[in-house]
Amino acid sequence: MTAGKPIKCIAAVAYEAGKPLTVEEITVDPPKAHEVRVKIDYTAVCHTDAYTLSGVDPEGAFPAILGHEGAGIVESVGESVTNVKPGDHVIALYTAECQKCKFCTSNKTNLCSSVRATQGKGVMPDGTSRFHNAKGEDLLHFMGCSTFSRYTVLADVSVVAIDPKAPLEKVCLLGCGVTTGYGAAVKTANVQKGDTVAVFGAGTVGLSVVQGAKVRGCSKIIVVDINDDKKTWASEFGATDFINPMKDLKKGETIVDKLVEITDGGLDFTFDCTGNVNVMRDALEACHKGWGQSIIIGVAAAGKEISTRPFQLVTGRVWKGSAFGGIKGRSEMNGLISDYFDGKLKVDEFITHRRGFTEINDAFEDLHHGDCLRTVLDLSK
Amino acid sequence: MTAGKPIKCIAAVAYEAGKPLTVEEITVDPPKAHEVRVKIDYTAVCHTDAYTLSGVDPEGAFPAILGHEGAGIVESVGESVTNVKPGDHVIALYTAECQKCKFCTSNKTNLCSSVRATQGKGVMPDGTSRFHNAKGEDLLHFMGCSTFSRYTVLADVSVVAIDPKAPLEKVCLLGCGVTTGYGAAVKTANVQKGDTVAVFGAGTVGLSVVQGAKVRGCSKIIVVDINDDKKTWASEFGATDFINPMKDLKKGETIVDKLVEITDGGLDFTFDCTGNVNVMRDALEACHKGWGQSIIIGVAAAGKEISTRPFQLVTGRVWKGSAFGGIKGRSEMNGLISDYFDGKLKVDEFITHRRGFTEINDAFEDLHHGDCLRTVLDLSK
Repeated sequence: MTAGKPIKCIAAVAYEAGKPLTVEEITVDPPKAHEVRVKIDYTAVCHTDAYTLSGVDPEGAFPAILGHEGAGIVESVGESVTNVKPGDHVIALYTAECQKCKFCTSNKTNLCSSVRATQGKGVMPDGTSRFHNAKGEDLLHFMGCSTFSRYTVLADVSVVAIDPKAPLEKVCLLGCGVTTGYGAAVKTANVQKGDTVAVFGAGTVGLSVVQGAKVRGCSKIIVVDINDDKKTWASEFGATDFINPMKDLKKGETIVDKLVEITDGGLDFTFDCTGNVNVMRDALEACHKGWGQSIIIGVAAAGKEISTRPFQLVTGRVWKGSAFGGIKGRSEMNGLISDYFDGKLKVDEFITHRRGFTEINDAFEDLHHGDCLRTVLDLSK
Repeated sequence: MTAGKPIKCIAAVAYEAGKPLTVEEITVDPPKAHEVRVKIDYTAVCHTDAYTLSGVDPEGAFPAILGHEGAGIVESVGESVTNVKPGDHVIALYTAECQKCKFCTSNKTNLCSSVRATQGKGVMPDGTSRFHNAKGEDLLHFMGCSTFSRYTVLADVSVVAIDPKAPLEKVCLLGCGVTTGYGAAVKTANVQKGDTVAVFGAGTVGLSVVQGAKVRGCSKIIVVDINDDKKTWASEFGATDFINPMKDLKKGETIVDKLVEITDGGLDFTFDCTGNVNVMRDALEACHKGWGQSIIIGVAAAGKEISTRPFQLVTGRVWKGSAFGGIKGRSEMNGLISDYFDGKLKVDEFITHRRGFTEINDAFEDLHHGDCLRTVLDLSK
């Protein structure tokens, strides 16, 4: 029995921005009240992890244990935890759901405020860390998850128990990218049969928007990406058209011109999955006058701003955003798992690479290659 | 009988940007097919008329007959006109409603496209003008209305017959400002009981947003204006709070800080009625995280752009706009007239000045004075 005791285990520690992670043994404290200790079986590496590790994230702090797209099994729970129990299969939620705060009870947003402040500081809700290295130094938590450790501690509001039949080595991806894109389409935008959709950026998030649009029966699903290698994937996930703005435009033609032309006036919905503020503008301006909505999903670099002429909005376009696909993790994750079992939601297809946990720095390299959607790390190896 | 014949009448002609209007006799051709000739009884002067006359409007063209907030009586109709007949009391609609184009039939927008192209060029749908001066020169139409003429010709899709009991000298204001603000609140934003609202700019449009919010039972209706003289009006139209950002902020405090503080996190809905792009940004950023919506109503100067960090949208704020309050003029105007008769929609209270038509240049001056909401001109004088 490990419950109630510190656990020594392997973790990948980010000691410094721009440097590789250090895989080493750390100590993970037992969970306090309203906390859960989870043995992470699988985690993927997401661009947000790379963004923070790069040092560009102004809120990034070190040393920390990164990782937020992971799944595992509850090892023990602290006092007053009622939503999960040891042995439960769980997905880590970087967007918590307390079901009590003004955000959760509004039914208008998934942006729970319960643990936001401490999560942003890299500590647990009581202000302290559960991670310590061999020197006894505290290591910061990350996004309330820290899945780059064989064992991690999360707030109880940051875990959801899932159907144990769901394969953890696959559904770990529902912890971020797949859910973010799919939810943005079916929940935030709530696209409908016959709608026209354009998706800028064909990574895991963008391709998941595509599958949401396909599930809903959208009539045109246009993927825009500057990498032609994404064309096959786009098609496999349900896109009807693929445009490479570096190659497929006539002289003097902009991507907005092209999209407006082939859709007879613009799109019903557009999605930015690039984080590039210029692309965000194009996505808005490619919307149909009168009703087109553009949803920003990508995370922009610090200090970058979006701009447009207000006329774009006065003439009926709507600019909005989506975080974690608008999905409430505890209430709605099992619905996504059902969609996965029913074949409506592709997950396995995003896993282009698998590695043992000790190869985590290679997994960060994989991200920069056009042939990689997701690398899943097996923490037992 | 004047039907079928040219009519000579008085009009105020804008010959040149930045110069006073010339009140002179012009000739108004009879209406062609799908056109209506209206004897304008009353017109107000709106900031958009002043904007175009100033020469700042890049689409402004001269010589033209301005004016778009007017009401009168149908004198004659051209062939194939079925929606109005001679003697009908009508309001001119700068936002047409053909009930046939993809915009009208979408049920998602009021931005009818039927006469948009020619209206923008200052001509009737057949590409010609119905107005000529004594020298025989054509005079351009304006916003499809040209209410600064005792007689004008409009497309049939640009007029709506109203209850003849409605006093034209008052309900002429429903042709623009009042409808624009009221509709932005009750239709575009669709504010609900208990919502919190902030309105930037307390002119006719802003105060009409306030009355829409009041009708719906909003719990907090905050007016923001740099002119303290607007405070009494704001209160009379239903505002619960008034903030003058030039006077009512602590040192170092921004209007966004102030609004977020007094609303425990931000507004459910904000409305820009200033046309100032910096105010538009404040209006967005004063919205509550997770669900706050900001609606741009004001017309920005040419070339100006709105900006914000995309994080504002990713965390749940929505940026949209509204033109003519989202109101479909032919379908919905009589609903507003009913609200007026029922006392739900104040109109009379906006008329701070009345003048004879020959004093039209003074009416443009009135606009620049803090004590003026609307000057209504009597075209019989």
